[in-house]
Amino acid sequence: MALNILIKKNMTSKTKKFFVVNQQGQKEPFSFQKVLQSAKRVGATHRMAQEIAQKIEKEVVEGMETRVIFEKIKAFLVKEMPSASLKFSLKDAMRKLGPTGFPFEKFIGKVLEKNGYKVKLNQIVKGKCVEYEIDCLTEKGGEVYLVECKYRNLASDVVDTQNVAILYAKFLDITSKNTPLNGFKGTINPLLATNAKFTTRAIKYANCVGVSLLGWKYPQTQGLERLIDENKLYPITILPSLNKNLLLLLNQAGIVLVDELLKANQNNQLNFIPANQLNRIISEAKLLE
Amino acid sequence: MALNILIKKNMTSKTKKFFVVNQQGQKEPFSFQKVLQSAKRVGATHRMAQEIAQKIEKEVVEGMETRVIFEKIKAFLVKEMPSASLKFSLKDAMRKLGPTGFPFEKFIGKVLEKNGYKVKLNQIVKGKCVEYEIDCLTEKGGEVYLVECKYRNLASDVVDTQNVAILYAKFLDITSKNTPLNGFKGTINPLLATNAKFTTRAIKYANCVGVSLLGWKYPQTQGLERLIDENKLYPITILPSLNKNLLLLLNQAGIVLVDELLKANQNNQLNFIPANQLNRIISEAKLLE
Repeated sequence: MALNILIKKNMTSKTKKFFVVNQQGQKEPFSFQKVLQSAKRVGATHRMAQEIAQKIEKEVVEGMETRVIFEKIKAFLVKEMPSASLKFSLKDAMRKLGPTGFPFEKFIGKVLEKNGYKVKLNQIVKGKCVEYEIDCLTEKGGEVYLVECKYRNLASDVVDTQNVAILYAKFLDITSKNTPLNGFKGTINPLLATNAKFTTRAIKYANCVGVSLLGWKYPQTQGLERLIDENKLYPITILPSLNKNLLLLLNQAGIVLVDELLKANQNNQLNFIPANQLNRIISEAKLLE
Repeated sequence: MALNILIKKNMTSKTKKFFVVNQQGQKEPFSFQKVLQSAKRVGATHRMAQEIAQKIEKEVVEGMETRVIFEKIKAFLVKEMPSASLKFSLKDAMRKLGPTGFPFEKFIGKVLEKNGYKVKLNQIVKGKCVEYEIDCLTEKGGEVYLVECKYRNLASDVVDTQNVAILYAKFLDITSKNTPLNGFKGTINPLLATNAKFTTRAIKYANCVGVSLLGWKYPQTQGLERLIDENKLYPITILPSLNKNLLLLLNQAGIVLVDELLKANQNNQLNFIPANQLNRIISEAKLLE
């Protein structure tokens, strides 16, 4: 027992005092725990995650970009657990969705629907002062959410206090009007959803004025990546063999999620894709089922 | 008398039903009155303004850009009234100030000071939720203004509802704190100042939530251009002979307004400028005294 504790301590506490550079270009201390959690999130066992974290710790050097560290984790995972390796690309895959072809608000709508919410996209809502186009209106159990979606396609992009302030002012104007919201009745709440991260100041301000946030790893235990994993709402852009041509063809056919791709394949609706390419993406997609 | 009325009617009512294209790229009906007012604003007599407007009316054609019309008005003015011609370039001169070298907030500070306001630039102000950097804090007679300055350097740039919403949310957070504002006591008001135009929706929203606006030709009878004319706060960029090198030299010497240039010249502080160039800009500057 004493030995076990000792081993465990050895395995987690040797963390080197290195600074690494994150995707926003800021320095942060290298974290053994973060590597461990990243690997576990995508399905690695605790033992496998610890092995990976120890290997990474040996290879990390001062000033290394977290992007490089993620590539290393992925390289380890791809050998041991192909499905985990795929899931590990989720953040990149979200950025590849693009502002056209597959608007982020549709994706958020699907996440909310899978969680039992009624959803109306792109609604015109009247405030006391002016009208607004609201990306997503949603309701469940008497709680209505005004959802503003902020899609970002650069790794370094963040959502800041100004984005929260704009939504908060919108919320104030709309609630001043005091009428049912396009058919939805209930307490109105503002929610800012993004595929990116929030700045610390934006989080502080949002918590203070009462704007809910949903973003990458925020809220910590219930961020967007967790909702996607839990609901298996993987975008097709997560499949390594999906090239731009295929993405375009599938978008034109209205297919944007991996489970939609698998369903269309079962119904023999994908004959517009060359057989060898189709086989490849379907076998990748099946790893995520 | 009857004849006089007839002549006057002829002079103003023949306005052609042409559409012209404004700096935002939008169509608007050609307005004889606008030409008349533009010429009068910069100092033309009513008779001279009417002559100009009639000449312009003959030359305007469907789809002509307002920019071209302004050039024509300026060409007429330059012969008749050189000082008016200079003032006519004020909007362009404001855009040439640039975000560096002569921040717009300093300019707004000077306008406010000349109107009897106490002014503090670039203040850190605490709200209930977070801190803010406020471009300009100003006070007069128990009215305190939180001024946000929006400098725009493209003719097509506008200030929209989101800019107003951000300031409004800031104002709400700061007034929630309910403490004297960096030494200024009084009723706090939000004011958005810009060298550009506001969108119609921004004006509607601002009037509704109580954000004051100061911009180009807004408020209509007391816009920024009027405050500049009334206070003779012309930026040195209004002088036609001022090239980029001279602008840089003068900015380095802290000279940004025409009256500062004239004062420095009187005090023989401009010996860093070649005599022939200095004579030219000083004689242009004197037209604006």
